[in-house]
Amino acid sequence: MNEILNYIDSNKDNFLGELIEFLKIPSISSEEKYKPDVLKAADWLANHIKSIGISDVKVHETEGHPIVFAQWLEAGENAPTVLVYGHYDVQPVDPLELWDSPPFEPVIKGTKIYGRGTCDDKGQLFAHLKSIESHLKINGKLPVNIKLIFEGEEECGGEAIEHFVKTNPELLKCDTVLVSDTEWYADGLPSICYGLRGISYFEITVTGPDRDLHSGTYGGTLDNPVNTLCWLVSQMHDKYGRVTIPGFYDSVIPLTQRERDGYKLLPFNEEHYCKELGIKATNGEFGYTTLERAWARPTLDLNGIFGGYTGDGAKTIIPSKASAKLSMRLVPNQTHDEIAAKFEDYIQKLAPETVKVDVKYLHGGNPFMVGLESKSISAALEALEEAVGVKPVFMRDGGSIPIVGLFQIILNAPTVLMGLGLPDDNIHSPNEKFDLRNFFSGIKASAIFLDKLAKI
Amino acid sequence: MNEILNYIDSNKDNFLGELIEFLKIPSISSEEKYKPDVLKAADWLANHIKSIGISDVKVHETEGHPIVFAQWLEAGENAPTVLVYGHYDVQPVDPLELWDSPPFEPVIKGTKIYGRGTCDDKGQLFAHLKSIESHLKINGKLPVNIKLIFEGEEECGGEAIEHFVKTNPELLKCDTVLVSDTEWYADGLPSICYGLRGISYFEITVTGPDRDLHSGTYGGTLDNPVNTLCWLVSQMHDKYGRVTIPGFYDSVIPLTQRERDGYKLLPFNEEHYCKELGIKATNGEFGYTTLERAWARPTLDLNGIFGGYTGDGAKTIIPSKASAKLSMRLVPNQTHDEIAAKFEDYIQKLAPETVKVDVKYLHGGNPFMVGLESKSISAALEALEEAVGVKPVFMRDGGSIPIVGLFQIILNAPTVLMGLGLPDDNIHSPNEKFDLRNFFSGIKASAIFLDKLAKI
Repeated sequence: MNEILNYIDSNKDNFLGELIEFLKIPSISSEEKYKPDVLKAADWLANHIKSIGISDVKVHETEGHPIVFAQWLEAGENAPTVLVYGHYDVQPVDPLELWDSPPFEPVIKGTKIYGRGTCDDKGQLFAHLKSIESHLKINGKLPVNIKLIFEGEEECGGEAIEHFVKTNPELLKCDTVLVSDTEWYADGLPSICYGLRGISYFEITVTGPDRDLHSGTYGGTLDNPVNTLCWLVSQMHDKYGRVTIPGFYDSVIPLTQRERDGYKLLPFNEEHYCKELGIKATNGEFGYTTLERAWARPTLDLNGIFGGYTGDGAKTIIPSKASAKLSMRLVPNQTHDEIAAKFEDYIQKLAPETVKVDVKYLHGGNPFMVGLESKSISAALEALEEAVGVKPVFMRDGGSIPIVGLFQIILNAPTVLMGLGLPDDNIHSPNEKFDLRNFFSGIKASAIFLDKLAKI
Repeated sequence: MNEILNYIDSNKDNFLGELIEFLKIPSISSEEKYKPDVLKAADWLANHIKSIGISDVKVHETEGHPIVFAQWLEAGENAPTVLVYGHYDVQPVDPLELWDSPPFEPVIKGTKIYGRGTCDDKGQLFAHLKSIESHLKINGKLPVNIKLIFEGEEECGGEAIEHFVKTNPELLKCDTVLVSDTEWYADGLPSICYGLRGISYFEITVTGPDRDLHSGTYGGTLDNPVNTLCWLVSQMHDKYGRVTIPGFYDSVIPLTQRERDGYKLLPFNEEHYCKELGIKATNGEFGYTTLERAWARPTLDLNGIFGGYTGDGAKTIIPSKASAKLSMRLVPNQTHDEIAAKFEDYIQKLAPETVKVDVKYLHGGNPFMVGLESKSISAALEALEEAVGVKPVFMRDGGSIPIVGLFQIILNAPTVLMGLGLPDDNIHSPNEKFDLRNFFSGIKASAIFLDKLAKI
């Protein structure tokens, strides 16, 4: 391993230069106009995989954005097989004016690299390619069989990979899934994430009159779609911050005492948390700490709302319609299908007959949890400790990586979430960044992990 | 009077030709590029007033568009003084492609003249000038003292005239205000509008975290500004459709039995109303009919809402902030200052401490009502009946003409709203039109009205 680690140390500048090339491609998957860039990123990735010595690479066309799949199976039948997952698409960049530097022109300041996708997920994905490259360069082979699957729709629904996984279980068969798309609990504190939340994401549209009306002439005579939408949404929580959808909590696995005790030992400072977000106080479901609510409790949040006049000054209209983007974060063992159905039933039950209420299911993903006793988890724990020099902690993450829930069902292999991000990396926000120390120690941890897996 | 009425009948073509000349000036007050045209319309009007025999005319410069003021006071101190108000500015014309003929090239089809400003308000304003001309041509004098005030900002805020009225109460001193800028209840049914609603228009902004956050990482830990805005807004009505702002209804003058009985006699068809608006049912404050709610009850409506992600597809954020445009229509004797203060108090009382709630008052105007027993109203009723041959009805209008509320306070004289428009005249829309029968009978009604006022 030492030679491999030395190779990594000697090639930092090369690795970084290649990453910057990758980051410059504006692969925003949710916006139609970037479709060619998403394709470009997929092709770039496929070519890069070939260049590091894996020739069996294919860019699979899908109904949406392509899936890059590659494999190197020369370790033989007796060696374990690791499936590495990542995504090469990125979030939109608006509000653009809040970025200190252009999102697709990466800039390095101190130990950080700034740009869209640096942390989520191009930088993290790339760490594994560099780990594989290091093994291949030094030994001409890998200690385990490797399958790589990189998708381009993680930020916009991930329907293509869902279909791909469901229809290709043999191709993807493996013993361990390795994913870096989460974060450390804190700077300098490496972490293994053992749970993720799922998601059900909707768009609701309330339509009243067939055109905008003069609010003087008509105000008071009919239900205003914007008021009605606000009322509908306000009905989704009770005064204790609980979601009111009937049956919403039925399948939720309660937090264990071990988990609650463990979370209390983590360095969490409520005051610092508020200050960092610019809020006066946290708030949410009654009876749970902030960390518990973020990691292990389901939620319902509006992600956007729009309707009527939104320009400067005043326009006196009753808008014809209004829409909201609304998503629920789910925890084990809720499923997104179950929750989506309950949500739709509830909305239709609440919807007044005076307006038209359309509910559109944009996407969903299941929550995930892995047993802490798994051998893959132990190997990851040791690899991270050796690479970073600090004993990792166990944590969950409030975010969703829907495909991880599906891997669990289809592939029946433990998933190791060896995230490399930091909590203040501004993913999905302006000035997204990635700590290069985590990038380089992540490459090493990945390389050590593959080695350890081969020896289990 | 007969000679005067004959003069009107003999000069229809002349009157119409002059009106068309006036209509051809594109005096769109809200668009900077039409500023010279607004000025041109003011000058045209001033010259026209001189040409019909009133020499004391002045175009007053203001911070915005000019005010045309003229007076003829030779009827003497014992004769009443009538202040005629109108506006020579017009609404924008977009969407231009929906016009059947160019908005500033008036076209006559059947009894209608089509073009921007035909009804709102050049055509209506012009009827009074032709009435005055007819008196002066036949008798060499007017039966009453006349003051004319025509503004160029009615469609863009009206700040100049508000300032002018407040600072020139002596100049505008009068016994009756005469305004034609409203409509008949129905074709063939002349109407006196005795009440208008006022308005208080706000923008509310709820700010949570200082940036958009990842809804997975943070969802459940803090109050979401969009959810909070929706909740705040949902608190503004109770389940009976009443506005919950404390003291909101304190100053509301209840509908009298005479009013309620009168409205029931008007031709109103609920089914037709719904069909015309494309809604399944009307709704609003419990215990009032649709017309009562539109004319005589105060309301609270959202005019627009926006926050977070509003593009295609999904973006998983907790937005940093969300805003709503919200206005209340007011009825006598609510004042916009009183209601604005009560609204702001209520919002600040409701606002949770976890977020920042900013309330910005965009504009306000007072409601208006004139006593049906006023002698001026009786004179108007008789004049309209004689001119049209049909007994007029009393109606209110749900919209606001803020300057009328101000006249009431500053001038303390009854205002006669002798509107000449029809409900389908498409004001503020493409294919605005004005019925020439209403134009010519309006000239006669105005002439008879001046005569009757002199005899009270």
